Amino acid sequence: MDKEHEIVVTSRIRLARNLKNYKFPVKMTGEESNEIIDAVNNAIKDKDLNFKLTYMRDLTDVEKFVFIEKHFISPALSENKNNGAFLLSADDKISIMINEEDHIRIQTLGYGMCLNECWEQATKVDDMLEEHLDYAFDKELGYIASCPTNIGTGMRASVMLHLPALSMTNQMDRILFGISQLGIAVRGVYGEGTKSMGHLFQISNQGTLGATEETLIEKISQIVMQIVQKEQITREQFRKNNFDDIEDQIHRAYGILTNARSICSDEAMKLLSYVKLGKEMGIMSKVDNKNLYGLMVEVQPNNILSNANEQLNLKERDKIRAEIIRNKLLG
Amino acid sequence: MDKEHEIVVTSRIRLARNLKNYKFPVKMTGEESNEIIDAVNNAIKDKDLNFKLTYMRDLTDVEKFVFIEKHFISPALSENKNNGAFLLSADDKISIMINEEDHIRIQTLGYGMCLNECWEQATKVDDMLEEHLDYAFDKELGYIASCPTNIGTGMRASVMLHLPALSMTNQMDRILFGISQLGIAVRGVYGEGTKSMGHLFQISNQGTLGATEETLIEKISQIVMQIVQKEQITREQFRKNNFDDIEDQIHRAYGILTNARSICSDEAMKLLSYVKLGKEMGIMSKVDNKNLYGLMVEVQPNNILSNANEQLNLKERDKIRAEIIRNKLLG
Repeated sequence: MDKEHEIVVTSRIRLARNLKNYKFPVKMTGEESNEIIDAVNNAIKDKDLNFKLTYMRDLTDVEKFVFIEKHFISPALSENKNNGAFLLSADDKISIMINEEDHIRIQTLGYGMCLNECWEQATKVDDMLEEHLDYAFDKELGYIASCPTNIGTGMRASVMLHLPALSMTNQMDRILFGISQLGIAVRGVYGEGTKSMGHLFQISNQGTLGATEETLIEKISQIVMQIVQKEQITREQFRKNNFDDIEDQIHRAYGILTNARSICSDEAMKLLSYVKLGKEMGIMSKVDNKNLYGLMVEVQPNNILSNANEQLNLKERDKIRAEIIRNKLLG
Repeated sequence: MDKEHEIVVTSRIRLARNLKNYKFPVKMTGEESNEIIDAVNNAIKDKDLNFKLTYMRDLTDVEKFVFIEKHFISPALSENKNNGAFLLSADDKISIMINEEDHIRIQTLGYGMCLNECWEQATKVDDMLEEHLDYAFDKELGYIASCPTNIGTGMRASVMLHLPALSMTNQMDRILFGISQLGIAVRGVYGEGTKSMGHLFQISNQGTLGATEETLIEKISQIVMQIVQKEQITREQFRKNNFDDIEDQIHRAYGILTNARSICSDEAMKLLSYVKLGKEMGIMSKVDNKNLYGLMVEVQPNNILSNANEQLNLKERDKIRAEIIRNKLLG
């Protein structure tokens, strides 16, 4: 795995699409929403991608949050309790949300920096759907969307970045401010608002109008590469100026993760972030074969709840989280 | 090892003795001090205890501090650079300081609660010396000493206690205040003044006059037993009310100790104290065969310096300390 792919954790493309002759989901009846679910499902089901349809109404709250934590669905879809649904490909890399803010949201996901591949994949799915469905499209404006910010290409390109060195040196606030001036949104990946857990940040375009998809992807990619470079430079500075401190911090993080009997998600994310940094800086070879980002997703609160057979209180959840981490890191 | 011996780490008896016809060490000439060193050495050398004589003037500062950290000599002896000396038995359990505040200070040390054994041993050494030496003794006052607080029996009985549970629950201040009202002194074992490192406390009698040695030892022993009981009760409360937290804290301490690449003595002592508590509460069986108190002594600053071949700065010392701990705990 090259350096760039260690810092860029995932890439995602999302396309917002709506159907002609239907009201936007917020206004539609249950009958209309079912028609759309069926239409999308039928448009996609004979393809090779083995999509599975899931209705929001069939999921418990915990199950919904697990899909959110895994980024398969959005919080907005989970709120459409009666009429929302989604299709997920067998490899978990393509999800099609139905009756979220828009009738259709195609989302493709890949590991590392792969916006172009995601875009190709999303276009392919988009074309499949368009063979059977009648999109709302305006020659001047482009694709019509429920929210004005999504009108135009309807595309959002997102990249999740792991930026421990920039975070530990308090450079993120300045960088985030600079990016926001360029029409790019930055959010912490887990945790509320812009609070970031595990030094994970998601950056994406804010507007979808007035540029082609390729131009938007190119712009995001350039900004991502600049941030990645800054992170790499800061890591090199660590190596030159603070190696002992960083080495100590990383090994302590590993020591706590492999021994704690209880750990909250905030601390777990921070320490896993240190260990991931250590792996990538060649300081911690014993985790070379561990999927640390995968473990970060696995220890999210609802994911833990969903794997337990019983109701758990916070304390029990923290104990199970500690156990999962010990088993994964030592196993 | 029974519970009592886990909490009472060491017992010590010290006897202050002076010779007739000699000035107190603070006033004597180099010639006189050498006469005393020779006289004490000759009085003891044909005995079975294999004493080794060491002159303060032959030691580096670091070497002196190591002997202090191991409690073989006092800081006051180390300050008598020209005229001080001490005899140490081959088993490290008896030291005879010469020309400290008093001409002679016999000190006997044992692990666990063993003041009576230490007292018997000290008396034996005292008798050996008295066969050849003429002690300054007053029928009314008892043994004459340089400092009035040591006149009388000249005996100080000290016990080192490991009190993590009482410390963690902030009960020590109250207990220390209560004890001080009884003519008992309490000091932190390492660290300045009454600051305690590693939750280790040393309690000893303050006066040596107006009671027999046996009475003083009995008094100290009773107080020690009360404190030990309080510590045991608090540990049981941990087990009943806070087991998960304590278990977590102990395992985290072990995780940091076995992984850190740098650690200062204050943190090392605190974490070793937690692990010692964990061993004794049956929470941490993997250290069952480890001498944790020994490790606490070993990681004292001067002890580390003395084992290094070169000058070390603070940072290097903390790195070596971390390495020693990892090797001992994992080895």
